[in-house]
Formats: sequence, structure tokens, C-alpha cells
Amino acid sequence: MPIIHDTAGRRDRLRDHLRARSGADEQVAAFVVSDLVNVRYLTGFTGSNAAVLIDASDPAGDRIATDGRYITQVAAQVPDVRAVIERACVPALVAHARTAGATRIGFEADAETVAGHRALAASIDDSGVELVGLTGVVQELRTVKDAGEIALLRAACAIGDAALAQIIADGVLRAGTTEREAARALEFAMYRLGADGIAFETIVAAGAHSAIPHHRPTHTALADGDLVKIDFGAVVGGYHSDMTRTFVLGRAADWQRDIYDLVATAQAAGRAALTPGTDLREVDAAARDVIDDAGHGEHYVHGLGHGVGLEIHEAPGIGKLAAGTLPCGAAVTVEPGVYLPGWGGVRIEDTLVVTQGDPELLTTTDKTFTVI
Amino acid sequence: MPIIHDTAGRRDRLRDHLRARSGADEQVAAFVVSDLVNVRYLTGFTGSNAAVLIDASDPAGDRIATDGRYITQVAAQVPDVRAVIERACVPALVAHARTAGATRIGFEADAETVAGHRALAASIDDSGVELVGLTGVVQELRTVKDAGEIALLRAACAIGDAALAQIIADGVLRAGTTEREAARALEFAMYRLGADGIAFETIVAAGAHSAIPHHRPTHTALADGDLVKIDFGAVVGGYHSDMTRTFVLGRAADWQRDIYDLVATAQAAGRAALTPGTDLREVDAAARDVIDDAGHGEHYVHGLGHGVGLEIHEAPGIGKLAAGTLPCGAAVTVEPGVYLPGWGGVRIEDTLVVTQGDPELLTTTDKTFTVI
Repeated sequence: MPIIHDTAGRRDRLRDHLRARSGADEQVAAFVVSDLVNVRYLTGFTGSNAAVLIDASDPAGDRIATDGRYITQVAAQVPDVRAVIERACVPALVAHARTAGATRIGFEADAETVAGHRALAASIDDSGVELVGLTGVVQELRTVKDAGEIALLRAACAIGDAALAQIIADGVLRAGTTEREAARALEFAMYRLGADGIAFETIVAAGAHSAIPHHRPTHTALADGDLVKIDFGAVVGGYHSDMTRTFVLGRAADWQRDIYDLVATAQAAGRAALTPGTDLREVDAAARDVIDDAGHGEHYVHGLGHGVGLEIHEAPGIGKLAAGTLPCGAAVTVEPGVYLPGWGGVRIEDTLVVTQGDPELLTTTDKTFTVI
Repeated sequence: MPIIHDTAGRRDRLRDHLRARSGADEQVAAFVVSDLVNVRYLTGFTGSNAAVLIDASDPAGDRIATDGRYITQVAAQVPDVRAVIERACVPALVAHARTAGATRIGFEADAETVAGHRALAASIDDSGVELVGLTGVVQELRTVKDAGEIALLRAACAIGDAALAQIIADGVLRAGTTEREAARALEFAMYRLGADGIAFETIVAAGAHSAIPHHRPTHTALADGDLVKIDFGAVVGGYHSDMTRTFVLGRAADWQRDIYDLVATAQAAGRAALTPGTDLREVDAAARDVIDDAGHGEHYVHGLGHGVGLEIHEAPGIGKLAAGTLPCGAAVTVEPGVYLPGWGGVRIEDTLVVTQGDPELLTTTDKTFTVI
């Protein structure tokens, strides 16, 4: 699927944002972006060392810096931004902005380390340049997905759905298969279906392991009567899918059915709360209240969900301590869980896109309680 | 392979190091480690949110912080350090150290971001506590590998060797196979051979693509006469292998043979320079001089190698601008290359352990010029 992203449009939106920042303390003449995911979002560049300079007033002032390994790649991926070939990308771009006359230069305070900043500050000593630390600026632009991004998320989620269906059809989820074998089978299926990569290390957690929210698959074999929790995703064109389904193997106990129904009800309530402009804590509460009311609040140890896109976890976070509201066009997960230590746990997770109407469900695998 | 790492010993070595730091400006009563790889090295914990507090004077003062998702996991993986369950790990540990009486508290200036540090500084305002940014402290301890680490590196490299041999035996490297198919076949083979993961996105670069040092595999098919450069690795127990081999498909041209011989000679010179105590720039120069003398200096656009361990790239870096000397027990790559844009390139890379005698070669795949 050859999606051409409008990276020039993204740089212009960032430029508009920089100009719109109010107050002398907030204004910068140029902004150096060094978070590699943000660099990819703004330029399409996928190498492992780069930074981008956004000129607040003139697109012709934009630059991308990378090192000698990527001369060919940067020319192919970023034909419309002039490149600076230098190993130390951030200092090189700050020096460039200074030469171009900028005196207030923004940098990503949530990407630059204390040590990196110290070296940078030393390099501009006495020059009259002021470095201004900004946080979350490009991350906020990234929360609202455009059509090309949603197409890639849809494709990634479709691969996840198809891969899970395939390993179930192949009989992988049966007593005797180890957690690792199941995880590898799922990952191989995603690759065969065209995934560029897997979104994160696949979680297959059986029996008591299913009570561990983020369990690494072991050589333990699945057994009849186990809850089997599977959390996984594919990457397509840099975009991640994220889905969790929990099954029971062979025969189900009443307590398993009960917590499954509880989590499913909470998850539906969370999905129903995904309307543009809703306070993120209200979205979290919509699902959490269901679990709290059933007396299982202490067994639900994490937030309701997170944004998903070029990163598997990105803004907005949806939890008890979240700040802000849900934007239209955000792609988020809804993934409540109930975990009973020593017994087992259930999590049900979908990836959805927030729209003016009902959210678009990207992960379409059935969520009915299923005994395999 | 159940390797038990002596993480308590590592914490004690770090404690010794903290106490040995000379001068009042360097001394800290406690050190908060937030880089997740360093956390794993010091405790064995593999979750995605954690930090460790090292008490400079008393092991009983050590703490590990993580959030509610990992209560079970931290108890299992780190039975010998008391846990603090808190989402914001670094502020929680700084607060703990303060309560325990520390007034000078170190943090990782190369892990903590400017924004994270700003929030931390605000949280201790007026308390009389001084935050001291340290860099590279645990990374330096990690350069010298212990026997358990070397065993895991050896196992990871052996899987790489066996996987490459297997896809060659299976006839994967032939005209018509795409770069992506070859990369996936290699990754599947590594998993089947017992890898826990792949070390980085496998590079298979054919024909003109081989001139791109870090090429992402495409749907381009390999063709007779192509240079095929393959750079890949496996992960075993957290430890990474790293190897590059370059082949010619079908029939070789003289220029391909010439640059292969040149790179092989440079690589052998680089390996021969791996003796404890050698200046890192001298190690780099040993190989680089061979390529410079042949007039191809401008076609060799990167450093000679890097440390490898819990990360695929770690200290020491071996390049023109490196500082320091090669320690005995370091695991490093030696990987010169010559890249002719539009034509093709050759890189030959091994992973080796520096010893008092000859370095131990962990990647044992033959390096003779080979036409497949």
C-alpha cells in the first residue's frame, strides 16, 4: 500500500503552531526536533540518527540533519528538505539556525537528555542565543490522524485480526502448545500476511500467568481450563495495531465467565465514551466505574488505554490522572482488565478511531466469551 | 540456558564506584538509575517502567520502583531488592532517598530528559537536596562482560551462524528471492533455533542497495551478479549478536572481488588490533588505514565498530573520534565497509570478545569470498 504522507503539510502545521504560541516566553524563531519518531512524522525519514530544524517563518529555512550512513536514504526519503550531513545532529542544526539569525531556538525538552542539553548549552555559550525547552508539541499534532495514517492503522489491525483467526483455525491454541510457540506462530502469521514488523513483543499468558498484565511468553504449555490472554499487534508502514483477546481452553469455570463478562461490559462502556471533546478522565471512569462497582477495582491496575500510531504508546493517555480531552481523529485503545493473582486474568482490548459519530472499530475480532 | 546473573555483585561494584568518586562535587549518597537497560543489568528486571536506587553506603538501602502492572513480575525477578510501587519511579526514589537522609542524590543525566529533570527539581524545591547529573556510569561497568554474559553472547552468535547456514542450504539466496523474503527467512530460522528475539531489523541489501550502509529490505528481487549484504543478529537472554556477511550471486565481477578483498584485509587488521589497553582510535585506524591507503577512504562512511551486549550498540564505540582504551572483557564488533554509490558495497562484520590473548571470535561463519 503506497501511502504518500503529506509531510510538508505537517511541517507547515507545526510552523503555524510555533507562530501561534503566545507571549515572548513561548515564541521561538526555530525549533529543533530530535525525537526520531517526530522526525519521521515530519519528514518521512526512518534512519537511526537525525534531527529536523523547523524555521518558524519560512519553509525554505527547514533542514534535516543526519550522518554519513544515510546520505542516500535521506535524499530518497526527504527530497524536499535540504540535508546537513553531521553526526551530532542537534548541535549542527542549532548552529545553522544561529547563522540564519535566530536568537530564540526551541528544542524538545522531552527528547533531549540533561547531558545532551548541557553540551549544547556549552556550544552556544556567549552567543546571545537562548535555548527554549518545549514539550509534547509534535506529539500533540500526531494525536489527530489523517486519512493516510488511518488507512495504515486499518491495514495493521486487519493483519492482526487475520493472523489470530489463522492460528485458531490451525489449532495452535490447544493444550500442549507452549506460550512461546503460540506467540511465535502469531508473529509468523502476521509477517506472512504482509506485516512490516510486529508492534511489540507478543504476550501469550496462560493460566495463572494471565493475571500478570505484561507477561513474557515462557515455555509453559497451555492446559485445559486455562484463561489464555493474547495481546499483540502488527506494524504496517510504521503504524501499529494493538489488540487483546482472552479465551478459555477446553472448559470454563464460573469465575472465569464472571470476570470475562465484567471486563466485556466495562470495555463496551469505555468504547461508548469515545466521543470528541470528552474529558480523558471521564473516558477512563466510564469503564473503571463498572469494575469498581463490581468490587474488583483493586484488580484493575492500569489505565484504560492510550493513543496508537507511529508508536505503540502515544498521546493521549487515557487514565485516572490524564489531562485534556479526546480529539476527533485520535486513534486509541480501550483495554480494561481484571487480574486475580494466582488464578488468572482477563483483558479485552480494541483499537478505535474517534469520529464525530460512533468510533470506528479497527480491530474486528469477535469479543463473545469463547471456549476453544 | 538458565544463566543466573550476579546482579547483587553488580550493584556492589556500582556502590564501590560511587564511593570512589573523588572530590566533593562528585560524591553522592545515593544514585537513581532510570535507563531501563541499566535497570535490567543491575536487577534483572525486564518491565517497561522502572528505576533503581543505589545507596552508596548500604545495600539494604537499595530500592527498585515500578508500577502496578509489574507487582508480580518484580517480586519474581528481583527478590533481593525492596520494591516501591509507584508510576513515577524517579521522583518516588528521590523522595525515598531524601527521607533516608541523603542530601546529594545522583541521577542519570544521559537518561533523564530535560523535562523530567525540571519536574524532579520542582518536587525537591527548598528541601536542601542537590541533584547531581552523572553520565555513562553503569554503561562503563557494562563494557566488561562476565562469564554469564559471554555465554549468552556466544549462544546468540551461534544462532546467527546456524541461521545463515540454514537459509543458504535451503537455497533462499538465489535470483528471484526478494530482499524481504530473505530477511524474513533468516529471522524465522533464528527463532526456530531458539532466539528470544531478533537483535535489530535484519538488513538484506542486494545490488546497488548494498551501497546503502543501513538499507531496509524491499520487495526487490536478488539478481545474478548482485552483491548481497546481510547484517543481522539474534537475542538470547537479553544479549545481542551482530554479524555481516556479503556474498556475490551467480557470477562475480573483478571490482566486486577487489573491494571484497580490501574490506577483508581491513577487517582482519581491525581484529588484530583488539588488544586490551589499546587506544580506541588506534583500533579504528588499524582498519581505516588499509582502506584509506587503497584510495577508498571516502567510501567508508562510518566507524569500525561498537560494544554489544544488552544493547545492540553500547560502549565502547570504536571510531575516529572515540575516547579511551579497549578494556579486557569487552565484546565489540569489527565491521569496516566500502560502499560505491550506484554500484554496490561490501561490509564484513564479526562480534568478538577482547581477552589477554587473541580475541575470541563469536561469529564463526566463513569470511572467504563466496559466489553463491
